Amino acid sequence: MTHFLKIVSDRRSIRKYSNKPVEMEKIRKCLESARLAPSACNSQPYKFIVINDPEIKNRVSKAAFSGAYSICGFAQSAPVLIAVVSQKQKMTAWLGNQIQNINFRYIDMGIAIEHFVLQATELGLGTCWIGWFNQKEVANILGIPDNCRVEIMLSLGYPQENPPVRTKKTFEQIASFNHY
Amino acid sequence: MTHFLKIVSDRRSIRKYSNKPVEMEKIRKCLESARLAPSACNSQPYKFIVINDPEIKNRVSKAAFSGAYSICGFAQSAPVLIAVVSQKQKMTAWLGNQIQNINFRYIDMGIAIEHFVLQATELGLGTCWIGWFNQKEVANILGIPDNCRVEIMLSLGYPQENPPVRTKKTFEQIASFNHY
Repeated sequence: MTHFLKIVSDRRSIRKYSNKPVEMEKIRKCLESARLAPSACNSQPYKFIVINDPEIKNRVSKAAFSGAYSICGFAQSAPVLIAVVSQKQKMTAWLGNQIQNINFRYIDMGIAIEHFVLQATELGLGTCWIGWFNQKEVANILGIPDNCRVEIMLSLGYPQENPPVRTKKTFEQIASFNHY
Repeated sequence: MTHFLKIVSDRRSIRKYSNKPVEMEKIRKCLESARLAPSACNSQPYKFIVINDPEIKNRVSKAAFSGAYSICGFAQSAPVLIAVVSQKQKMTAWLGNQIQNINFRYIDMGIAIEHFVLQATELGLGTCWIGWFNQKEVANILGIPDNCRVEIMLSLGYPQENPPVRTKKTFEQIASFNHY
């Protein structure tokens, strides 16, 4: 097995965290991995807000995961949250969206955030992608400008569970050769 | 530097390929890495069509990268092309799109395709993400069903160039702590 395939195989969505703090050096490595991600027309249309101040983290996580969003309440136990904010694309990337009818900004966010996630995995950290949270409240607390949006959150911390692998499509369902 | 950060740092968008064939075993490792990618509600809304038959590859690459799309004509020199086709999401993921106003399908494609790309990099292969090609013609040749779309293509092969790193946002531009 390649080293990369081992990282990918080790990754799980972690929903239970120990309260061991996450070292700043590890957070910086995750951010550096995201920083080097490719993006359409090199737009890099995202910014990562790391929320590791306990007081702010508590405010954000209460606001983000209450009411209709409490299904993601597990994230309140994570020592660190990341809010990923979309930024303006370059005009060429935006034009590509219109003509090809593809939202490259979301593809770009998928790539960069997964770089963060895989680097975290290699460093022994757990993460969970979260798309279901109160965007408006989080934006208020973090002071996000009106023309930006918090699109995705990540929880981050040392895992306190070891969930089984989720069932995936088979090789034949996910790939074919030279025809559909 | 971590092993993962080295892979990420080594990755380039490769636009010149040697004609050395790509081993099937390596292609399978890349597909396996993509297969294990996380996705919203575990939808896995994609299928990877590997085009490595020389005759079909020539037909596809001529159709994909002619006329207005010839700016991506470099891809004709790659020994392998991958067409990534979007598949139906699960209802829960689709609902998430509507309520959060995020297209999780594109995020999911970004994640899975980048898994492929990073595994290829670790194996010494070069890739380039391609979002600018004649979707309709490619779909015709590959027999893609009417309700599916070829969203992204990748070129794949052994690199015959060593392009410099592209300028990226600085750490301060891409990340902040506890506020925007």
